[in-house]
Amino acid sequence: MTIQMFEKPLGMRDDFPFIAKKKAELRASGTNIIQQAGYELLQTPTLEYYETIGKISAIADNALFKLLDSQGETLVLRPDMTSPIARVAASKLLKEKMPVRLGYYSNVFRAQKREGGRPAEFEQMGVELIGDDSLYADAEVIILAGTILKNLNIESSRFVIGHTQLLQLILEDFGLNQEQIEQVRSAFVSKNSVGFETLAKQLPIEESRMESFIGLISTTTVEEWQQWVNPHNSKQSSLFEEMKKLKKILDRNGLSEAVTYDLSFNSHMTYYTGVVFEVYAAGSGFSLGNGGRYDGLMKQFGLEVGATGFGLRVDRLLEIMSAVSEQQEHILILFDADNEDQAFDEAQKLRTNGTRVTLQFAPAVKATDEFSNHFSKVLRLEGAN
Amino acid sequence: MTIQMFEKPLGMRDDFPFIAKKKAELRASGTNIIQQAGYELLQTPTLEYYETIGKISAIADNALFKLLDSQGETLVLRPDMTSPIARVAASKLLKEKMPVRLGYYSNVFRAQKREGGRPAEFEQMGVELIGDDSLYADAEVIILAGTILKNLNIESSRFVIGHTQLLQLILEDFGLNQEQIEQVRSAFVSKNSVGFETLAKQLPIEESRMESFIGLISTTTVEEWQQWVNPHNSKQSSLFEEMKKLKKILDRNGLSEAVTYDLSFNSHMTYYTGVVFEVYAAGSGFSLGNGGRYDGLMKQFGLEVGATGFGLRVDRLLEIMSAVSEQQEHILILFDADNEDQAFDEAQKLRTNGTRVTLQFAPAVKATDEFSNHFSKVLRLEGAN
Repeated sequence: MTIQMFEKPLGMRDDFPFIAKKKAELRASGTNIIQQAGYELLQTPTLEYYETIGKISAIADNALFKLLDSQGETLVLRPDMTSPIARVAASKLLKEKMPVRLGYYSNVFRAQKREGGRPAEFEQMGVELIGDDSLYADAEVIILAGTILKNLNIESSRFVIGHTQLLQLILEDFGLNQEQIEQVRSAFVSKNSVGFETLAKQLPIEESRMESFIGLISTTTVEEWQQWVNPHNSKQSSLFEEMKKLKKILDRNGLSEAVTYDLSFNSHMTYYTGVVFEVYAAGSGFSLGNGGRYDGLMKQFGLEVGATGFGLRVDRLLEIMSAVSEQQEHILILFDADNEDQAFDEAQKLRTNGTRVTLQFAPAVKATDEFSNHFSKVLRLEGAN
Repeated sequence: MTIQMFEKPLGMRDDFPFIAKKKAELRASGTNIIQQAGYELLQTPTLEYYETIGKISAIADNALFKLLDSQGETLVLRPDMTSPIARVAASKLLKEKMPVRLGYYSNVFRAQKREGGRPAEFEQMGVELIGDDSLYADAEVIILAGTILKNLNIESSRFVIGHTQLLQLILEDFGLNQEQIEQVRSAFVSKNSVGFETLAKQLPIEESRMESFIGLISTTTVEEWQQWVNPHNSKQSSLFEEMKKLKKILDRNGLSEAVTYDLSFNSHMTYYTGVVFEVYAAGSGFSLGNGGRYDGLMKQFGLEVGATGFGLRVDRLLEIMSAVSEQQEHILILFDADNEDQAFDEAQKLRTNGTRVTLQFAPAVKATDEFSNHFSKVLRLEGAN
């Protein structure tokens, strides 16, 4: 393969000025909301050890960008932000102050096999609330995600909420072993209802309970979940009570219309252990981000504490976010050697007043019309100072 | 080597919240000034082909982080921003609109051999002005760098300015061949005056001109440069006239005190071809950044145009920048299940008014004193809603 001078690696993109500007607005709005909610922004390195972050991350090994450092250790470009933040939160400095609220706006990396339009580098914005087992923590991060979207004028956001542990207990009650449960979960992740029904018929489900089993895939309210909850199983009952409480808090905080409660909802991220959710926008099929409780992950960093959080995909938010704010006035001052003093003075005066000014020595411009086109106003200085 | 869970690769750092916040202010201030001056912000990918960006960059090959992609091509983590921006500027979209003004705030990567406190990843903020050969372009980027520093309240910034092409012509006039000139330049880069004098005695310099030759290393004003300029060499004369003009513009724009004109000033960046400069702060020995004209680089992307620019080191600016703006009020609301409604309402009201609020379910906090310590005010809600 011969690489041309202008080529970029597979899945790598340049952000041209218009996108860079819209992104800067999104970043400012989102990180402001995150900080207002009491989260501290954190930045972790792009490169991490494969042994620590690479192996723990829920991202498939063949999607990791790997390289060797000068000591022969394998490094990875961070594939997500949850595990680096867990690493930081478990460090001495922060673990005394639990619960810890950390936020980020960072790029993450996923190697692509072919050029299929999927980015190999993209930005995520999110939070992690570490050290709080209560359902208030689950509610807090969902409400926060909703507030970020609302402030980006994405009014039509929708949440799909599930509970991985409650689903697990219910599937066990159907008499399935762990291998069968994993098969069911996979069918749920891909939301393939035909595939799920075919699978269901091959599983050792009692004939009398088959209709109920198949119904698992189509719940939309917490109330509907009750028919699967075993009232004699105290863990199931208490998790169900928590879900009802969560719904009550979300309803009270303006999310009553926005949420679907799907008992079969499952994440491809394997580390989730409780309430999980995915964020969508009405009219758009793709996910804007996801989140949930991952109590197991912190254990790998030596901390037995609960944690929850979410990450939003910046590229997808950009696509559905309404237009960037009014174009700022941008004045072009074209000058000659004769009137340079006047030009510099005028530019400085305008900029001090907040106006954007490009100061350009006229003889250095080859195509004046092409160059002048995108300014809101052109000042052509003539004559001597 | 056994890697502990908390370890990070050589030269990699976490930015804890205090630094992340100061950095966000620096970024906002700097990118605002850059845009006010008519530059468009751009973002390029972290990974580039070694064949394009890696080889062209002025960074030593052994300081590049390299990896293989799934096609077996060698990629690099971008070692600087000048060559990626040159790649973009030379693309079809922008080359019609020359001169093009592009700005960036980006992290760059330099592999370290050992843990010596030098970062392997750091951020740079800068601009590139591409397609303008005039000395006004040189003046513009120097004034812009000064404005950025001034707006960060770094009042004591100092510039050292040289001219690589004029120095080359003057060294040729001393009868040196290119190999000898490179030796002299290396001594100048390290500002080793003892080493330079030792070297000078080994060079074929006429006895009568030795004192003059050694004096090259200690100029501080443009006027002093005149004694080395050959009035019969029209190229030297015109470059010298341009330097006087540059000084006049910088003087008029508030930089008369801040600039040292050092004829021997030289960059370790090999692609510079004209006016070059380094930025310092008074009282600090290390460079805050550098810049200059690099007309040759654009040719590698198929464009025969002049270009100049600069990059500032964010980590070094952070060290000397004055304290971050006043700490914002940050209220902690501690609540129980009994008064959750009141708590959520109160938090929302305060946040709407711009106050930063952490809302915390009290029973989830293990060490209440430790946790409450860093808030400016704690509201402990008691009793029922």
